[in-house]
Amino acid sequence: MYKVVVIGTGNVSYHICKAILKNKNLKLLQICGRKIRNSEKEFSHIKYTNDLDKLSKAEFYFICVSDDAILDVSKRIKVNNKSLIIHFSGSTDLEVLSHYPNYGVIYPLQTFSKKRDIIFSEVPLFIEGNSDFSLKKIKKISSLLSNVISVCDSKKRSFVHISAVFSNNFSNYMNLIAEELLIKEKIDPNILTPLMNETAKKLNFLSAKNAQTGPAIRNDYKTIKKHLALLKNSEYFEIYKNLSLMIKKLNK
Amino acid sequence: MYKVVVIGTGNVSYHICKAILKNKNLKLLQICGRKIRNSEKEFSHIKYTNDLDKLSKAEFYFICVSDDAILDVSKRIKVNNKSLIIHFSGSTDLEVLSHYPNYGVIYPLQTFSKKRDIIFSEVPLFIEGNSDFSLKKIKKISSLLSNVISVCDSKKRSFVHISAVFSNNFSNYMNLIAEELLIKEKIDPNILTPLMNETAKKLNFLSAKNAQTGPAIRNDYKTIKKHLALLKNSEYFEIYKNLSLMIKKLNK
Repeated sequence: MYKVVVIGTGNVSYHICKAILKNKNLKLLQICGRKIRNSEKEFSHIKYTNDLDKLSKAEFYFICVSDDAILDVSKRIKVNNKSLIIHFSGSTDLEVLSHYPNYGVIYPLQTFSKKRDIIFSEVPLFIEGNSDFSLKKIKKISSLLSNVISVCDSKKRSFVHISAVFSNNFSNYMNLIAEELLIKEKIDPNILTPLMNETAKKLNFLSAKNAQTGPAIRNDYKTIKKHLALLKNSEYFEIYKNLSLMIKKLNK
Repeated sequence: MYKVVVIGTGNVSYHICKAILKNKNLKLLQICGRKIRNSEKEFSHIKYTNDLDKLSKAEFYFICVSDDAILDVSKRIKVNNKSLIIHFSGSTDLEVLSHYPNYGVIYPLQTFSKKRDIIFSEVPLFIEGNSDFSLKKIKKISSLLSNVISVCDSKKRSFVHISAVFSNNFSNYMNLIAEELLIKEKIDPNILTPLMNETAKKLNFLSAKNAQTGPAIRNDYKTIKKHLALLKNSEYFEIYKNLSLMIKKLNK
C-alpha cells in the first residue's frame, strides 16, 4: 500500500484525494493546505496540517497547488531519498522539482470543480519522471488512479494543456458569448442547453472536423454578411469575422 | 388532424418529418425533394414527389430547404387561401414568403444530423407569423412538436441564430483546433472526449460565465506567455492571443 501526502486544497486536490480514498492500494496519509480540508466530510478522518514543516513521512507527495506556488511549496518539503515528489500542472516544467532526487508530473486532462463528480478512472493522465526509477513508480501509482495513461515530456504536455485551453476554456467562452447575446435580446440563455449538450454528444461519435457545420463551412456568405451587419457595434464582431474566415479555410 | 406537406429532404426535414409522424394530431401527407426520401424506411409509406407542381393540398407547407433556395421554392408552391407556408431558417426574413396570404417561421434551435436521434419535444422553437391568424395556427402546430416555444421577430431570431453559431459552430471549431494540436503532437485526439463531455455537462448547472476557467480568467500571464511561445509559428497563435485578451476583460 502506497502512502500519499497531498499538498493543496483546491479542485484538483479534492478530486485526487477522493480517487485516492477509493483505492484499496493507496492510503491518503495527510492533507496539507491553507484551507481546512477536513471540514469537508469526505476527509474528516484524514490527518490535516497547514504547516509544510509538519508533513508526515510518505512514499508520494502530490503537489496540487497553483502553478506559481509549485516551486516555493516544493522547496519547503523535506523528504527522504526514496520519496517521490509529483506536481499536477499542465504547463509547468518537470525540472521545477529538480532539487529532489526523485520527482515527476501527473497531469490530469479534465476540468475539475468540487460540485461535480468525476469518474477519475476515465481521466487521461500525462506522466513524466526524472529517471527510470521515478517513471516506473509514477506509472504504478497512476495506473491505480486511471485507466488512461500516457508518458510524455514537458513540451508535449504543454501542447496537451494548450489543447485543453481550446477545448474547455475557449469553447466555454464561445458559449459565454452566445449567452450574452441572448441576454441582450432579453431571451433566457438556458434555451441553449439542448444545443450545448448535442454539440458535445456529437463529438463522442465524430471528429470535430467532421462535426463542423454552420454558415462559414458551407460558404454561406449571405448569412455571414447578415450576422456581421447585426454585430456591427458589438464587441463580438471581430471574433465572428475571424473565426468564420478560419473555418472557411478548412474547405480548401 | 393537421395535414402537413414537407418540402426538402435534408437534416432538418428528416427530424421534422420524424416528429410529425410521432404525433397523432399531425399527418405527414407528402414529402417533396430532390433526394428520394422514401428510401429511408421511416418514410417508405409516405407519398413522395420531386415535382413542386405536384404538391398535395394541405393546411401546412413546411419549407425545409437551404436558405438560398427558400424564395425560389416558395414561389412555385400553389396553395389555397387558408394554407400556411412556413420556413425553418434562423436568419431568413419572414417577408421572403410575403407573396402568400398566410406565412410564418419556425426556427428550431438545435444541430441536426440524420445519424443522431433528437428529442424534438425539447428543441426550442422560435416562431413568427405574418398575422394574428397565422401566428395562432403556427403556435398551435408548434406546440404539437415541442414544449419550448418563443414568439420572436426576424431580427431577434437572427440573434438567436448568431448565438447558435457561437455555441455550436465556433465552440466545435475550438475543439477542432484542440484535436489538430494533438494530432500534430502524435497524440490520439480521442483523449479529449471526457473533457469535452464534462465541459458541456457543467453548463447544465452553471452559466458559461460562472463556468469560465483557464489561464486567461485567472490572469496567469506566465502560462499564457509560455503557450504563445509554443504557438509562435502556428496558425492558432492569433486566436489564442485574442481570445485570452477577451476573456481577461471579463475580470474587469
